[in-house]
Amino acid sequence: MLNNTPADRQSARLAQFVNGLEWASIPAGVRHEALRSLLNYFAVALGACQDPTIDKAIRVMLPFRSTGSHGHTASLVGRPERFDMLHAAAINAMAANVYDFDDTHIPTIVHPTAPVAAALLALAQTRALSGADFLLAFVAGVEVECRIANALSPGHYARGWHITSTCGVFGAAAATAKVLGVSSEELVWALGNAAAQSAGLVETLGSSAKSISVGNAARNGLLSALLAQAGFEGPEAPLEGAFGFLKVVGDTVNWAALDGELPGCWQLQRNTYKPYPCGVVLNPVIDACLELAARFEFTAQASQTINRIEITGHPLLRQRTDRPGVTNGRQSQVSAQHAVSVVLLRQRAGLTEFSDAAVTDPAIRALGAKLSFIDDASMSVDAAHVRVTFADGAAVESRIDAARGSLANPLTDAELEAKLRTLCVYGQSGVDASRLIAAVWALEHSGDVGEIMALVALPAP
Amino acid sequence: MLNNTPADRQSARLAQFVNGLEWASIPAGVRHEALRSLLNYFAVALGACQDPTIDKAIRVMLPFRSTGSHGHTASLVGRPERFDMLHAAAINAMAANVYDFDDTHIPTIVHPTAPVAAALLALAQTRALSGADFLLAFVAGVEVECRIANALSPGHYARGWHITSTCGVFGAAAATAKVLGVSSEELVWALGNAAAQSAGLVETLGSSAKSISVGNAARNGLLSALLAQAGFEGPEAPLEGAFGFLKVVGDTVNWAALDGELPGCWQLQRNTYKPYPCGVVLNPVIDACLELAARFEFTAQASQTINRIEITGHPLLRQRTDRPGVTNGRQSQVSAQHAVSVVLLRQRAGLTEFSDAAVTDPAIRALGAKLSFIDDASMSVDAAHVRVTFADGAAVESRIDAARGSLANPLTDAELEAKLRTLCVYGQSGVDASRLIAAVWALEHSGDVGEIMALVALPAP
Repeated sequence: MLNNTPADRQSARLAQFVNGLEWASIPAGVRHEALRSLLNYFAVALGACQDPTIDKAIRVMLPFRSTGSHGHTASLVGRPERFDMLHAAAINAMAANVYDFDDTHIPTIVHPTAPVAAALLALAQTRALSGADFLLAFVAGVEVECRIANALSPGHYARGWHITSTCGVFGAAAATAKVLGVSSEELVWALGNAAAQSAGLVETLGSSAKSISVGNAARNGLLSALLAQAGFEGPEAPLEGAFGFLKVVGDTVNWAALDGELPGCWQLQRNTYKPYPCGVVLNPVIDACLELAARFEFTAQASQTINRIEITGHPLLRQRTDRPGVTNGRQSQVSAQHAVSVVLLRQRAGLTEFSDAAVTDPAIRALGAKLSFIDDASMSVDAAHVRVTFADGAAVESRIDAARGSLANPLTDAELEAKLRTLCVYGQSGVDASRLIAAVWALEHSGDVGEIMALVALPAP
Repeated sequence: MLNNTPADRQSARLAQFVNGLEWASIPAGVRHEALRSLLNYFAVALGACQDPTIDKAIRVMLPFRSTGSHGHTASLVGRPERFDMLHAAAINAMAANVYDFDDTHIPTIVHPTAPVAAALLALAQTRALSGADFLLAFVAGVEVECRIANALSPGHYARGWHITSTCGVFGAAAATAKVLGVSSEELVWALGNAAAQSAGLVETLGSSAKSISVGNAARNGLLSALLAQAGFEGPEAPLEGAFGFLKVVGDTVNWAALDGELPGCWQLQRNTYKPYPCGVVLNPVIDACLELAARFEFTAQASQTINRIEITGHPLLRQRTDRPGVTNGRQSQVSAQHAVSVVLLRQRAGLTEFSDAAVTDPAIRALGAKLSFIDDASMSVDAAHVRVTFADGAAVESRIDAARGSLANPLTDAELEAKLRTLCVYGQSGVDASRLIAAVWALEHSGDVGEIMALVALPAP
């Protein structure tokens, strides 16, 4: 398949793959990774359920929610409002991604779960859908989404496309089309309807506008499948056609990555979960600082005796995070100056430490000014070395070879559970984390996935 | 302004232009062109109001229409259903464009009115909006839409972007934001929210999927403005930023065309209206054939004595329309073989002549097989020469220098009225064309634009 070409009917092949996929053929490790992705999804959505961006989106959308036959059937994570499934898909995808604390598909930096899970869970509330059928559709959707992203990486994101949004709509379309049980021809139409709606720009990162495209990826993916089911036909080759999606948005396209060796490596097995609400390149730096902070007590007073802090890492670390003088929480998530200082001083690296309030702390700002970067291109992006030197010449240091949350050192199931519990408290929804965790691990044996949404939604007012 | 650069804050400048625009500063010719564009909009939407694509879209969307405070307030052109304004904007934009019989902005081939008018008319039904304020917002929206398209042309469409959809969302956002009376900062946010949703591919042309992106341009533009008004902030430079819309979707960008010499030439004055439901390059050919058909009687029997038909035109004519053996109405709209034959044999060039039924006529197919092209790069795309040679050696010919509907030979107001009357009958809605025509010409003096939608909608069931 390495030499396949645009003439190879990739859209049809992907559609046939999705339609042919059976639960029995999904390896145990992939099934378990699907559950881990969902646990992380609920964690991050619960953490953000009261975020102002989500509040504003709901305020604008409430007058437009349906009360028709699909109306008020779909719940929001951590909230009491009920919506039709299209709006619920959008809002729940926004919530899961608004802090960029959701999962990361390493080859592409797609956040794969938010668009696919949000669309599927909304659809699941309109019918009886078993856990196994739901998980099968989820695996298929992530596979389509990430394979399209693989074919376009790294050029697509580098050009400025917000890849989670632009590729997520295909994953949501494929997953929900699988649940709807459409023909393979209709599934190609669903991909075409998604191609007509694929959007999202890197320029919007750091603003609310980003959340529109992430929400649309879920909503419009679901809508694409519903339209295809109703006979809304798209082109025959929405991905590989002369003016198809991949040709138009990709300056170079790796066609073999799109449908080569299906399934080959399952894309979910390249998925990772963040331990900290930061850019992933900061993970090893934060690991090192947490370790130092546990060994030494860097009070604000003690930190005044620090002369300098040197962090050594892959050049990407400096390029992505050399960001002094940040003024809000969102910027602080990609600032090594802030991350190092706040972790050394507070011995923690949660959403509170990367909030608008945290960046105003003068002690953190003062310590951040002492930071310098040392590039070492021979190091992995998952590695870092942090050295703190005091006024008297003494120094302490820590070296991390594989950051927590990397593919080489993934978060354990227990750590994912702890992430969910922490974010559940942070989001103040009052959702019962223990029941939710138990329900996710048991999802394969559930007869009705809608029941899990009943656990994460608040009672309707 | 010819040397302006991305650093020139084009997004902010466009927003300030839109917000500063006043009715008194709009020249009479531009005001009148806005009315002509709206007349043409209603004509094409009424013609397509019963089209299967529109039926299917409505069937899928009905369960999702709101009954909230914005619910059931907005009408559909030529139909009895009522929707919330977001759904109505989408469906009415789809209807106006589904046959590609809507207006054409000559420098970019954008169909400018469908996204902007559909969004504005939907919003107008939720409040009292005067005709002058409506028309002012329409002029502003078309200006933004077509200037963005100018900056990206011709590369953007050539790469495969469906420019009506990708740029239409900005026009709809700017126009509705102007009606909402947001600040210039919020208007930049509306453009950013639109940038996050801009989508649409040439690959979808000829399929229902195209209509999704055209509908979304109207719906999502309106949503972008509503979100901006609610404080949903976007990036500062959604158009010109390093990963902004123009950089990402344009291989080359003509920055001066974006905001140079505002307003300079008004984009509405580059707008044209199609006399025939075909690709514009066919217009002079159809003109010539209508003229020949009026002079000679080409019955099916008489046409058997035709030996050959030669059409001479700009090479684009052959490149775009050398399409023998078409199998459906949509293909026939861009087939010179079909167009020449059907017009010679039936002396008409309306939607009926470019329908699925028309392409099955054996006499039309037989005559089309006798067609050949002669390229003449010295000719304008608005010109054509048609020569019909009979078995006995006799020949008849017709030469057109400026096709009907071109900028040099625009449809008259009376011809636009006739187009509306014809399409009104074709669409079988039963709408009173005369009252509608009078209301459009009087729109500037209307105190409530919503009244015009009452004329085009059927009574709710």
